[in-house]
Amino acid sequence: MTKNNFQKILVPLDGSKYSEKALDRACELVEAFDSTIILIYVVEKSIPVNLLDRKEYLELLRKFGNNILKRAKTKLSNKGINAKTFLKEGNISNEIEKIAKKENCNLIIMGNKGLGTVSRLLLGSVSNKVSQSSSCSVLIVK
Amino acid sequence: MTKNNFQKILVPLDGSKYSEKALDRACELVEAFDSTIILIYVVEKSIPVNLLDRKEYLELLRKFGNNILKRAKTKLSNKGINAKTFLKEGNISNEIEKIAKKENCNLIIMGNKGLGTVSRLLLGSVSNKVSQSSSCSVLIVK
Repeated sequence: MTKNNFQKILVPLDGSKYSEKALDRACELVEAFDSTIILIYVVEKSIPVNLLDRKEYLELLRKFGNNILKRAKTKLSNKGINAKTFLKEGNISNEIEKIAKKENCNLIIMGNKGLGTVSRLLLGSVSNKVSQSSSCSVLIVK
Repeated sequence: MTKNNFQKILVPLDGSKYSEKALDRACELVEAFDSTIILIYVVEKSIPVNLLDRKEYLELLRKFGNNILKRAKTKLSNKGINAKTFLKEGNISNEIEKIAKKENCNLIIMGNKGLGTVSRLLLGSVSNKVSQSSSCSVLIVK
Protein backbone atom coordinates (compact mmCIF):
# COMPACT_ATOMS: atom_id res chain seq x y z
CA MET A 1 0.00 0.00 0.00
CA THR A 2 1.69 3.21 -1.11
CA LYS A 3 -0.86 5.47 0.53
CA ASN A 4 -2.61 4.61 3.76
CA ASN A 5 -6.21 5.77 3.69
CA PHE A 6 -6.76 4.93 7.35
CA GLN A 7 -3.73 6.88 8.58
CA LYS A 8 -5.36 9.38 10.89
CA ILE A 9 -8.55 8.42 12.69
CA LEU A 10 -10.78 10.72 14.74
CA VAL A 11 -13.10 9.19 17.34
CA PRO A 12 -15.68 11.50 18.94
CA LEU A 13 -16.63 10.22 22.39
CA ASP A 14 -19.75 11.01 24.40
CA GLY A 15 -19.63 8.43 27.16
CA SER A 16 -22.23 6.18 25.53
CA LYS A 17 -21.79 2.47 24.79
CA TYR A 18 -22.06 3.40 21.11
CA SER A 19 -18.95 5.57 21.20
CA GLU A 20 -17.25 2.81 23.20
CA LYS A 21 -17.97 0.41 20.33
CA ALA A 22 -16.65 2.97 17.83
CA LEU A 23 -13.44 3.19 19.87
CA ASP A 24 -13.08 -0.62 19.70
CA ARG A 25 -13.37 -0.58 15.89
CA ALA A 26 -10.85 2.27 15.79
CA CYS A 27 -8.38 0.17 17.81
CA GLU A 28 -8.69 -2.67 15.29
CA LEU A 29 -7.96 -0.31 12.40
CA VAL A 30 -5.06 1.30 14.28
CA GLU A 31 -3.53 -2.14 14.81
CA ALA A 32 -4.04 -3.14 11.16
CA PHE A 33 -2.95 0.13 9.52
CA ASP A 34 -0.62 1.59 12.16
CA SER A 35 -2.87 4.66 12.26
CA THR A 36 -2.71 7.68 14.49
CA ILE A 37 -5.76 8.14 16.71
CA ILE A 38 -7.34 11.35 17.98
CA LEU A 39 -10.10 11.45 20.59
CA ILE A 40 -12.52 14.33 21.01
CA TYR A 41 -15.22 15.17 23.51
CA VAL A 42 -17.43 18.16 22.76
CA VAL A 43 -19.23 20.00 25.54
CA GLU A 44 -22.53 20.82 23.85
CA LYS A 45 -23.30 24.45 24.49
CA SER A 46 -26.63 24.62 22.71
CA ILE A 47 -28.56 22.84 25.46
CA PRO A 48 -31.29 25.13 26.83
CA VAL A 49 -30.41 25.52 30.49
CA ASN A 50 -31.36 28.73 32.28
CA LEU A 51 -28.55 31.18 32.92
CA LEU A 52 -28.19 30.53 36.65
CA ASP A 53 -27.69 26.78 36.16
CA ARG A 54 -25.78 27.06 32.92
CA LYS A 55 -22.34 27.68 34.37
CA GLU A 56 -22.61 24.76 36.79
CA TYR A 57 -24.01 22.49 34.09
CA LEU A 58 -21.17 23.26 31.67
CA GLU A 59 -18.64 22.72 34.45
CA LEU A 60 -20.15 19.26 35.05
CA LEU A 61 -19.96 18.44 31.34
CA ARG A 62 -16.31 19.55 31.19
CA LYS A 63 -15.49 17.26 34.12
CA PHE A 64 -17.44 14.41 32.51
CA GLY A 65 -15.68 14.94 29.17
CA ASN A 66 -12.25 15.00 30.74
CA ASN A 67 -12.98 11.73 32.54
CA ILE A 68 -14.25 10.10 29.33
CA LEU A 69 -11.10 11.16 27.47
CA LYS A 70 -8.82 10.05 30.31
CA ARG A 71 -10.49 6.64 30.52
CA ALA A 72 -10.27 6.11 26.74
CA LYS A 73 -6.63 7.21 26.68
CA THR A 74 -5.81 4.66 29.40
CA LYS A 75 -7.70 1.92 27.52
CA LEU A 76 -5.65 2.64 24.38
CA SER A 77 -2.42 3.01 26.33
CA ASN A 78 -2.93 -0.53 27.70
CA LYS A 79 -2.94 -1.73 24.09
CA GLY A 80 0.23 0.21 23.35
CA ILE A 81 -1.64 2.90 21.42
CA ASN A 82 -0.90 6.56 22.03
CA ALA A 83 -3.79 9.00 21.51
CA LYS A 84 -4.05 12.77 21.21
CA THR A 85 -7.14 14.17 22.95
CA PHE A 86 -9.24 17.30 22.58
CA LEU A 87 -11.94 18.76 24.83
CA LYS A 88 -13.92 21.31 22.84
CA GLU A 89 -17.03 23.38 23.47
CA GLY A 90 -19.74 24.34 21.03
CA ASN A 91 -21.92 22.54 18.50
CA ILE A 92 -20.94 18.86 18.49
CA SER A 93 -20.88 18.16 14.74
CA ASN A 94 -19.22 21.52 13.93
CA GLU A 95 -16.42 20.91 16.45
CA ILE A 96 -15.89 17.35 15.16
CA GLU A 97 -15.57 18.62 11.60
CA LYS A 98 -13.24 21.45 12.61
CA ILE A 99 -10.81 19.06 14.33
CA ALA A 100 -11.04 16.55 11.44
CA LYS A 101 -10.02 19.31 9.02
CA LYS A 102 -7.35 20.89 11.23
CA GLU A 103 -5.72 17.53 11.96
CA ASN A 104 -6.10 16.23 8.37
CA CYS A 105 -7.97 13.12 9.46
CA ASN A 106 -8.77 10.44 6.88
CA LEU A 107 -11.58 8.85 8.81
CA ILE A 108 -14.08 9.65 11.55
CA ILE A 109 -15.44 6.65 13.45
CA MET A 110 -18.58 7.21 15.47
CA GLY A 111 -21.44 5.36 17.07
CA ASN A 112 -24.82 5.36 15.43
CA LYS A 113 -26.57 6.84 18.43
CA GLY A 114 -25.32 8.58 21.51
CA LEU A 115 -26.43 10.29 24.64
CA GLY A 116 -28.75 12.48 22.62
CA THR A 117 -30.89 15.27 23.93
CA VAL A 118 -34.44 15.57 22.69
CA SER A 119 -33.50 18.50 20.47
CA ARG A 120 -30.73 16.44 18.91
CA LEU A 121 -33.12 13.56 18.22
CA LEU A 122 -35.45 15.97 16.48
CA LEU A 123 -32.67 17.46 14.41
CA GLY A 124 -31.29 14.09 13.41
CA SER A 125 -28.37 12.32 14.99
CA VAL A 126 -24.89 13.82 15.17
CA SER A 127 -23.44 10.91 13.18
CA ASN A 128 -25.95 11.58 10.44
CA LYS A 129 -24.98 15.25 10.24
CA VAL A 130 -21.25 14.53 10.33
CA SER A 131 -21.47 11.82 7.65
CA GLN A 132 -23.26 14.22 5.33
CA SER A 133 -21.15 17.32 5.80
CA SER A 134 -17.67 16.05 6.68
CA SER A 135 -15.05 16.14 3.97
CA CYS A 136 -13.41 12.91 5.16
CA SER A 137 -14.78 9.38 5.24
CA VAL A 138 -17.08 8.36 8.09
CA LEU A 139 -17.55 4.91 9.61
CA ILE A 140 -20.83 4.62 11.48
CA VAL A 141 -20.58 1.76 13.93
CA LYS A 142 -23.74 -0.16 14.88
CA MET B 1 -8.25 -10.36 17.67
CA THR B 2 -10.69 -13.08 18.69
CA LYS B 3 -13.58 -11.73 16.65
CA ASN B 4 -13.10 -10.02 13.32
CA ASN B 5 -15.52 -7.13 12.95
CA PHE B 6 -14.59 -6.54 9.32
CA GLN B 7 -15.14 -10.16 8.27
CA LYS B 8 -17.84 -9.78 5.64
CA ILE B 9 -17.96 -6.57 3.61
CA LEU B 10 -20.71 -5.53 1.22
CA VAL B 11 -19.92 -2.98 -1.49
CA PRO B 12 -22.85 -1.58 -3.49
CA LEU B 13 -21.70 -0.43 -6.94
CA ASP B 14 -23.39 2.01 -9.29
CA GLY B 15 -20.68 2.71 -11.84
CA SER B 16 -19.74 6.08 -10.30
CA LYS B 17 -16.24 7.14 -9.29
CA TYR B 18 -17.55 7.27 -5.72
CA SER B 19 -18.39 3.59 -5.66
CA GLU B 20 -15.00 2.91 -7.29
CA LYS B 21 -13.34 4.66 -4.35
CA ALA B 22 -15.47 2.64 -1.91
CA LEU B 23 -14.25 -0.53 -3.65
CA ASP B 24 -10.62 0.60 -3.18
CA ARG B 25 -11.14 1.11 0.56
CA ALA B 26 -12.84 -2.29 0.73
CA CYS B 27 -9.79 -3.91 -0.90
CA GLU B 28 -7.53 -2.38 1.76
CA LEU B 29 -9.71 -3.76 4.55
CA VAL B 30 -9.93 -7.17 2.85
CA GLU B 31 -6.14 -7.32 2.71
CA ALA B 32 -5.77 -6.22 6.36
CA PHE B 33 -8.51 -8.37 7.87
CA ASP B 34 -8.74 -11.25 5.37
CA SER B 35 -12.40 -10.35 4.86
CA THR B 36 -14.91 -11.80 2.45
CA ILE B 37 -16.26 -9.31 -0.08
CA ILE B 38 -19.68 -9.16 -1.71
CA LEU B 39 -20.56 -6.81 -4.58
CA ILE B 40 -24.07 -5.72 -5.42
CA TYR B 41 -25.61 -3.70 -8.23
CA VAL B 42 -29.27 -2.76 -7.90
CA VAL B 43 -31.36 -1.97 -10.96
CA GLU B 44 -33.52 0.86 -9.64
CA LYS B 45 -37.09 0.14 -10.61
CA SER B 46 -38.68 3.25 -9.16
CA ILE B 47 -37.51 5.56 -11.95
CA PRO B 48 -40.50 7.08 -13.70
CA VAL B 49 -40.16 5.94 -17.31
CA ASN B 50 -43.31 5.46 -19.39
CA LEU B 51 -44.43 1.89 -19.92
CA LEU B 52 -43.31 1.59 -23.56
CA ASP B 53 -39.73 2.62 -22.77
CA ARG B 54 -39.58 0.94 -19.39
CA LYS B 55 -38.72 -2.57 -20.57
CA GLU B 56 -35.91 -1.35 -22.79
CA TYR B 57 -34.60 0.96 -20.07
CA LEU B 58 -34.50 -1.79 -17.45
CA GLU B 59 -32.76 -4.09 -19.94
CA LEU B 60 -30.08 -1.44 -20.45
CA LEU B 61 -29.61 -1.06 -16.69
CA ARG B 62 -29.30 -4.84 -16.27
CA LYS B 63 -26.58 -4.92 -18.93
CA PHE B 64 -24.83 -1.92 -17.34
CA GLY B 65 -25.01 -3.53 -13.88
CA ASN B 66 -23.62 -6.82 -15.12
CA ASN B 67 -20.68 -5.00 -16.74
CA ILE B 68 -19.99 -3.02 -13.56
CA LEU B 69 -19.98 -6.20 -11.49
CA LYS B 70 -17.83 -8.07 -14.02
CA ARG B 71 -15.27 -5.26 -14.17
CA ALA B 72 -15.07 -5.01 -10.36
CA LYS B 73 -14.75 -8.78 -10.03
CA THR B 74 -11.81 -8.73 -12.47
CA LYS B 75 -10.18 -5.83 -10.61
CA LEU B 76 -10.39 -7.78 -7.34
CA SER B 77 -9.32 -11.02 -8.98
CA ASN B 78 -6.12 -9.30 -10.17
CA LYS B 79 -5.36 -8.60 -6.49
CA GLY B 80 -6.04 -12.23 -5.58
CA ILE B 81 -9.41 -11.40 -4.02
CA ASN B 82 -12.45 -13.52 -4.80
CA ALA B 83 -15.83 -11.76 -4.72
CA LYS B 84 -19.43 -12.93 -4.69
CA THR B 85 -21.70 -10.73 -6.84
CA PHE B 86 -25.42 -9.97 -6.88
CA LEU B 87 -27.54 -8.18 -9.47
CA LYS B 88 -30.84 -7.20 -7.85
CA GLU B 89 -33.86 -5.17 -8.93
CA GLY B 90 -36.01 -2.84 -6.84
CA ASN B 91 -35.41 -0.03 -4.41
CA ILE B 92 -31.65 0.48 -4.04
CA SER B 93 -31.35 0.94 -0.27
CA ASN B 94 -33.90 -1.82 0.46
CA GLU B 95 -32.04 -4.33 -1.71
CA ILE B 96 -28.69 -3.39 -0.16
CA GLU B 97 -30.09 -3.93 3.34
CA LYS B 98 -31.74 -7.22 2.34
CA ILE B 99 -28.44 -8.66 1.06
CA ALA B 100 -26.52 -7.31 4.07
CA LYS B 101 -28.91 -9.15 6.37
CA LYS B 102 -29.15 -12.35 4.33
CA GLU B 103 -25.37 -12.63 4.00
CA ASN B 104 -24.67 -11.55 7.62
CA CYS B 105 -22.40 -8.70 6.56
CA ASN B 106 -20.48 -6.77 9.24
CA LEU B 107 -19.88 -3.70 7.15
CA ILE B 108 -21.28 -1.88 4.12
CA ILE B 109 -18.83 0.40 2.30
CA MET B 110 -20.34 2.96 -0.05
CA GLY B 111 -19.53 6.18 -1.82
CA ASN B 112 -20.96 9.40 -0.52
CA LYS B 113 -22.67 10.26 -3.76
CA GLY B 114 -23.56 8.28 -6.82
CA LEU B 115 -25.26 8.44 -10.15
CA GLY B 116 -28.28 9.95 -8.50
CA THR B 117 -31.53 10.81 -10.22
CA VAL B 118 -33.26 14.06 -9.33
CA SER B 119 -35.81 12.22 -7.20
CA ARG B 120 -32.99 10.55 -5.32
CA LEU B 121 -31.34 13.89 -4.61
CA LEU B 122 -34.62 15.19 -3.23
CA LEU B 123 -35.14 12.17 -1.03
CA GLY B 124 -31.59 12.22 0.30
CA SER B 125 -28.75 10.05 -0.85
CA VAL B 126 -28.84 6.27 -0.80
CA SER B 127 -25.81 6.17 1.51
CA ASN B 128 -27.63 8.40 3.94
CA LYS B 129 -30.66 6.11 3.97
CA VAL B 130 -28.58 2.95 4.32
CA SER B 131 -26.44 4.36 7.12
CA GLN B 132 -29.54 5.24 9.10
CA SER B 133 -31.56 2.07 8.63
CA SER B 134 -28.99 -0.69 8.18
CA SER B 135 -28.36 -2.98 11.13
CA CYS B 136 -24.67 -3.32 10.32
CA SER B 137 -21.90 -0.71 10.35
CA VAL B 138 -21.56 1.60 7.35
CA LEU B 139 -18.41 3.25 6.02
CA ILE B 140 -19.19 6.26 3.86
CA VAL B 141 -16.19 6.97 1.64
CA LYS B 142 -15.53 10.55 0.52
